[in-house]
Amino acid sequence: MKKIAAADVFFTPEHREQIEKTAAECGYTVDFYPDGHLPPERAAEYEIVYGCCLPGELKAAANLKWFCCSFAGVDIYMDESIYPHPGVLLSNSSGAYGITIAEHIIMVTLMLLRRMPEFEKVVRERGWLRTLPMRSICGSSITILGTGDIGTNFAVRARALGAKAVRGVRRTQKAGDPAYDAMYTFAELDSVLPKTEILVMALPGTPETHHILSRERIALLPEGAYVVNVGRGSAIDQEALMEALNGGHLAGAALDVMVPEPLPKDHPLWDTKNLLLTPHISGNMSLGITCDRDVALFCEDLKNFASGKKLKRFVDRSLGY
Amino acid sequence: MKKIAAADVFFTPEHREQIEKTAAECGYTVDFYPDGHLPPERAAEYEIVYGCCLPGELKAAANLKWFCCSFAGVDIYMDESIYPHPGVLLSNSSGAYGITIAEHIIMVTLMLLRRMPEFEKVVRERGWLRTLPMRSICGSSITILGTGDIGTNFAVRARALGAKAVRGVRRTQKAGDPAYDAMYTFAELDSVLPKTEILVMALPGTPETHHILSRERIALLPEGAYVVNVGRGSAIDQEALMEALNGGHLAGAALDVMVPEPLPKDHPLWDTKNLLLTPHISGNMSLGITCDRDVALFCEDLKNFASGKKLKRFVDRSLGY
Repeated sequence: MKKIAAADVFFTPEHREQIEKTAAECGYTVDFYPDGHLPPERAAEYEIVYGCCLPGELKAAANLKWFCCSFAGVDIYMDESIYPHPGVLLSNSSGAYGITIAEHIIMVTLMLLRRMPEFEKVVRERGWLRTLPMRSICGSSITILGTGDIGTNFAVRARALGAKAVRGVRRTQKAGDPAYDAMYTFAELDSVLPKTEILVMALPGTPETHHILSRERIALLPEGAYVVNVGRGSAIDQEALMEALNGGHLAGAALDVMVPEPLPKDHPLWDTKNLLLTPHISGNMSLGITCDRDVALFCEDLKNFASGKKLKRFVDRSLGY
Repeated sequence: MKKIAAADVFFTPEHREQIEKTAAECGYTVDFYPDGHLPPERAAEYEIVYGCCLPGELKAAANLKWFCCSFAGVDIYMDESIYPHPGVLLSNSSGAYGITIAEHIIMVTLMLLRRMPEFEKVVRERGWLRTLPMRSICGSSITILGTGDIGTNFAVRARALGAKAVRGVRRTQKAGDPAYDAMYTFAELDSVLPKTEILVMALPGTPETHHILSRERIALLPEGAYVVNVGRGSAIDQEALMEALNGGHLAGAALDVMVPEPLPKDHPLWDTKNLLLTPHISGNMSLGITCDRDVALFCEDLKNFASGKKLKRFVDRSLGY
């Protein structure tokens, strides 16, 4: 019997049952590793690995055919040398994180627009203050850089909250998605930034997205704009962002991702003005619906794999997505 | 020429122009008092007062026919003795605050569900923590107590965010509003609370709503429920709420209103577990669209008043709403 290693920390008894049932239908048995790690002495038993095991743990899986990562962002699994052989297929769990990360984006955007960090400071000191100027998602011009599952889940919600315009910017041309008021390509980004009040970034970490929000592009954003990043820290020129916040060109930013992570205690990001930092939690697996969706996506692709079809969430390591 | 006093702190030149234009059409001139106060020596000149002047300032307005309060909640203007004569009409600005307060409710609800107070504490100490259980608005059962402008603006948004059920509870029976999955009366509240994961309260301060969320009703909420109050602090038995939070029956609460306001430095609310306090800011007038809407509502009712029609936002002081 062919074998699957399911190595992740979030599986409930219901998840295990669902994975085992689908595996049996496809001719596999499943071993679970609830600490999320693939033990080196057993790694060679598995044709399929699903979960969050470390990049360095895959090398020992000499008979591995497919690694299904339970994350959406798989940039740390791009290095070809971590695999036992070049034929190992890689897939991600894009589609599991849209709801939770969209809710995170709404929360931090409202916290910035409604001056919550300042009000919270007043409350911590048991004070009372009622008069800081606020803004609203309603009526705002929003640009979403990265229009995958996360960006699109947020776009739908931003429009429901009354945003004036929700523009999507993506790598390549694509037919208009009804979630967006207009769709642009990376090449058109410079023309979209000057009319952007809130820039939301949900991009994978690839060579193409590295520092895509450069110093020059930060300057193209209007005075008083906001930046929210939930994709990868590498997408922003962090030095330039800190300057734009400390100098007042930007009204605020919320970073759930940054370089490096975890952030060292002496890093200047901690002290940057109007910056709301969160420790890469926007997509964490503690939200039940995210976990349920992650398992469902794996089971769907397991059926594809077993019947010789293309994996739906296949990642091409030569392209980085 | 008959005269209007417009006494509030938020008027822009555009607001003044709009008020003056409508006033002229109705046969009035306007004096503006940008500090929000009606000077006693001039109060008798005005037939109409619009704004946020203090209850004690109205008595001197011997010729007052109509006071249009720029707030939505007018409980502090209910006492008959503050008026120069019983014939003074009172109206409020219900309708101006729905968007801003709905955004506040979404923000604080997500902050509670996503454990932001705890993550923010970690970030303040420059730490890194990724694993607190989170919940989502998506899939949650929400009950909204008070289905006016504010409750309904939130209901529409909660459904767009994927809430499983959004129930409205109001004073009297009313035909179903499409913003809600179901509509109940105050008399049915006890049957709705046990299936409520998130209780949102947006009620005016009236004798009927005083302590409507009593100790007994807090106990009817399921273990792990959340309470958000943006109406009036008097609607909650605050002692019982603190006990339910400190004892762990409730998972969290967000209060923008409380008793008393401002909260004294030694009040036990400051130290209550899983309580997110804000200093009555959810509807403050610093949000442009709120101010614009407030002025538009006054101008609409000014036309009604001048042509002898009923005021659209008339408040019956004998009923309290």
